Amino acid sequence: MLFFTQCFGAVLDLIHLRFQHYKAKRVFSAAGQLVCVVNPTHSLKYAPTLCAAVQASTDQGIPPCHHHEAVHDPQLVPCMCPLFSCPWEGHLEVVVSHLRQTHHINILQGAEIVFLATDMHLPAPTDWIIMHSCLGHQFLLVLRKQEKYEGHPQFFATMMLIGTPTQADNFTYRLELNRNQRRLKWEATPRSVLERVDSVISDGDCLVLNTSLAQLFSDNGSLAIGIAITTSKVLNSEAEM
Amino acid sequence: MLFFTQCFGAVLDLIHLRFQHYKAKRVFSAAGQLVCVVNPTHSLKYAPTLCAAVQASTDQGIPPCHHHEAVHDPQLVPCMCPLFSCPWEGHLEVVVSHLRQTHHINILQGAEIVFLATDMHLPAPTDWIIMHSCLGHQFLLVLRKQEKYEGHPQFFATMMLIGTPTQADNFTYRLELNRNQRRLKWEATPRSVLERVDSVISDGDCLVLNTSLAQLFSDNGSLAIGIAITTSKVLNSEAEM
Repeated sequence: MLFFTQCFGAVLDLIHLRFQHYKAKRVFSAAGQLVCVVNPTHSLKYAPTLCAAVQASTDQGIPPCHHHEAVHDPQLVPCMCPLFSCPWEGHLEVVVSHLRQTHHINILQGAEIVFLATDMHLPAPTDWIIMHSCLGHQFLLVLRKQEKYEGHPQFFATMMLIGTPTQADNFTYRLELNRNQRRLKWEATPRSVLERVDSVISDGDCLVLNTSLAQLFSDNGSLAIGIAITTSKVLNSEAEM
Repeated sequence: MLFFTQCFGAVLDLIHLRFQHYKAKRVFSAAGQLVCVVNPTHSLKYAPTLCAAVQASTDQGIPPCHHHEAVHDPQLVPCMCPLFSCPWEGHLEVVVSHLRQTHHINILQGAEIVFLATDMHLPAPTDWIIMHSCLGHQFLLVLRKQEKYEGHPQFFATMMLIGTPTQADNFTYRLELNRNQRRLKWEATPRSVLERVDSVISDGDCLVLNTSLAQLFSDNGSLAIGIAITTSKVLNSEAEM
């Protein structure tokens, strides 16, 4: 009976792994560029104990999900994944493992990748998230569909360094949309995750698309965003303007 | 007495000319690029007879301001300047002279110019308009501040060819904002003025900035937009995506 229970557990684990693989890791290479298919996560801002639930199901060396207290250590990063309810806070060093292990956010390698967000039609709030390992650091790309103004959903895309603001200043990231003889490029210095993704998006200091632009750049409900990260230099033509 | 009246009229004309010069033609060259200071025009959508008034004051060979009738000639272009009330309609060949002479819209030469829109804080609806002569054609750059959603003004920038859609397909235009270590680029095929600027803006098929992005790119209430026009080729990396 014990043997049967263990076998059943192992089968469940396999199904679970297979599902995660499908959800988060449909990665393939097209025309020499790494394309990562990113499925949406409906933002569950007010779901109370999701982090705990996820954690319970993946009980293997995960940083502890300790509940919100009045902590004011500026080096503590709140969980910036779409599971807004996640009460986890932790130091920078363990953010990557928290995101990978607790929230199953995939991590990709390479200086240039294509982030293919599926199901752009889903109602706000929805997030598409991936981690990107490049130039010796980890970055977090967040695409968020949100209604800042009721009935007027917008898409916000930003890249953040899982590191300090000083480290972030050494990089420049570029997001590029290219379709239907239109091209939109956003270049900026990444912000640090210590500055919190919610602030960056509410400040509007990121690539912003309204629904009609998002539709122009989408293909069959999926939006391809080309991502490139370089070490920073003063943007060339700034002086010229 | 007649002499005095004529002198007084001449002085008034001089003052009028001087004022127009100040309003529409503060053009200078900075770091090798032509910079055109463009003052805003508050959109007077419901002002009834402004075109007639303007025309009366500049009575010199202007195309006639004939009032709206049920004309369905697709080659007739309604006046697309911010004086929405202007009831003028005319063929493509006379659009440039109408805009110059009736509405005093300036025309600039050169493949690359900087459009410097002043007083970005003014309430919507407001327009900034310039004509741009380049590669043997005339283009119209329109920056419009408009509230598509009440209480949420946005900026829309587009370039249109004063020519047919087929002619427009031969060009690509680029609008570029560059400030505070951020860069935003929009590249597209210009639309023809026959397609009407209002439709392009209501479709959102243009560079769209919300207020916070416009502020990030502005300096002292002025927004510099770098403009470049080239003959069209398929955007390079489109195939790569």
